[in-house]
Amino acid sequence: MDLIPVKDADDPRLAPYVSIRERDLTGRADGRFIVEGKVTLAILAERSRFKVESVFIGESRVEPLQGVLSQLPKGAPVYVAPQPVMDAVAGFPIHRGVLACAHKGAPLTLDQFAGCETLLVLNDISNHDNVGAAFRNAAAFGAGGVLLDEKSCDPLYRKSIRVSAGSALWLPFHHGGTGETHIRFLQAAGFDVWAMTPAAGAQAVASVPVSGKTAILLGAEGPGLPQSLIDQCRPVRIPMATGFDSVNVATAGAIALSRLFASR
Amino acid sequence: MDLIPVKDADDPRLAPYVSIRERDLTGRADGRFIVEGKVTLAILAERSRFKVESVFIGESRVEPLQGVLSQLPKGAPVYVAPQPVMDAVAGFPIHRGVLACAHKGAPLTLDQFAGCETLLVLNDISNHDNVGAAFRNAAAFGAGGVLLDEKSCDPLYRKSIRVSAGSALWLPFHHGGTGETHIRFLQAAGFDVWAMTPAAGAQAVASVPVSGKTAILLGAEGPGLPQSLIDQCRPVRIPMATGFDSVNVATAGAIALSRLFASR
Repeated sequence: MDLIPVKDADDPRLAPYVSIRERDLTGRADGRFIVEGKVTLAILAERSRFKVESVFIGESRVEPLQGVLSQLPKGAPVYVAPQPVMDAVAGFPIHRGVLACAHKGAPLTLDQFAGCETLLVLNDISNHDNVGAAFRNAAAFGAGGVLLDEKSCDPLYRKSIRVSAGSALWLPFHHGGTGETHIRFLQAAGFDVWAMTPAAGAQAVASVPVSGKTAILLGAEGPGLPQSLIDQCRPVRIPMATGFDSVNVATAGAIALSRLFASR
Repeated sequence: MDLIPVKDADDPRLAPYVSIRERDLTGRADGRFIVEGKVTLAILAERSRFKVESVFIGESRVEPLQGVLSQLPKGAPVYVAPQPVMDAVAGFPIHRGVLACAHKGAPLTLDQFAGCETLLVLNDISNHDNVGAAFRNAAAFGAGGVLLDEKSCDPLYRKSIRVSAGSALWLPFHHGGTGETHIRFLQAAGFDVWAMTPAAGAQAVASVPVSGKTAILLGAEGPGLPQSLIDQCRPVRIPMATGFDSVNVATAGAIALSRLFASR
């Protein structure tokens, strides 16, 4: 463990941690991303598929984080600063006093998901909470990975990682392309693709036969999946009460995933 | 419709809208609560079980809200102010420009829930998003109401209402008492009470026989339900992947509720 005291908010080694919120909004072109909090750092250290570049913690956190820090890969520097320096660098109060910077590395290709038994596929999900929750559910019900189209938001955004209970750090995903390209790939690879829709003509989720590889396709809350995508898949609905047929999109995914998990 | 122009942030008629966030935190002893946004106002006007005391909107909102405002009960004043006045009263920017004040009225008693077929019961759920999401799921799967113990948070907090998709305004609930008193009431009224728990010995949710009245009992994320409560009920689990057996508490409720709804 390589503890490096830092006293100056302008220290160039802390550059990845400067103005975190603003750079979350504009996006980072350098392939880096930031994680926060002890639980997430522990997953990053022990189970993540990403390279940890550095850790940045408040002075008072050195002692309680001993266990986690000892799990870090050799050579990852741990910068330690007084809390006010940390807040000044980040641009807002880092109450948890724990940040880390990792690198996304080379993106996974679609082909790497061809052998999975269950996949979750997100189309146009632009809310970070929903993406995080969808990952958490995919992990809980043993999906082999998540595909996100180019309009969906980044699962490695800080809040998505936190809501995913850290699963965005280890559950394989592919982010890019369109719903069309995803469906074409999935069907060529032999997946039965369930397009989740409230449409009355769709099959009830409990009565769909489960055999072989299955992908669950979710669309944006509100508009739902485009009809052109639904038409290419098996439309599947979750029966709900008349007059209030609306659950959160990640929750809809959880219900379909749990049905699939229980059938296997 | 009774439009009343207001120019002065100190106007005493706007007293219920002063410093909304601070009063959300400390709670309101007068039985009033605040709702925000057009969609929620529409539900408050058309479907709510609560008395609307007044509405407070920005000047630019009068035109687009015509339809909703015409649904309000006779005699409910609609205060209209320039946006800066509205922001000054509330203490933060009210981007949506739509607030309303309603009164909780007399609380429902436990006995009023004895005839429901399905109930959702929340124990120690102190996160407003989770309470709101639990209501949304209860509504989607046709539960007759929600019971919340005294340690759970207020479903009529602004954010809970919004996350509930407005269902907290019309789905009957009882807030008070303890898990013990709830279980005693439910069992006396003939409910089968499912205590949701990840414990290995619990019955898998898909295999529980459904007959007659059923209540689904959820505990806090993290610790879950106390063992003393589980021991008094039918322990039910949602099968999940080894090594990551965790879904959000409201999501767990949705899975159990959807199974129940599909069986009826």
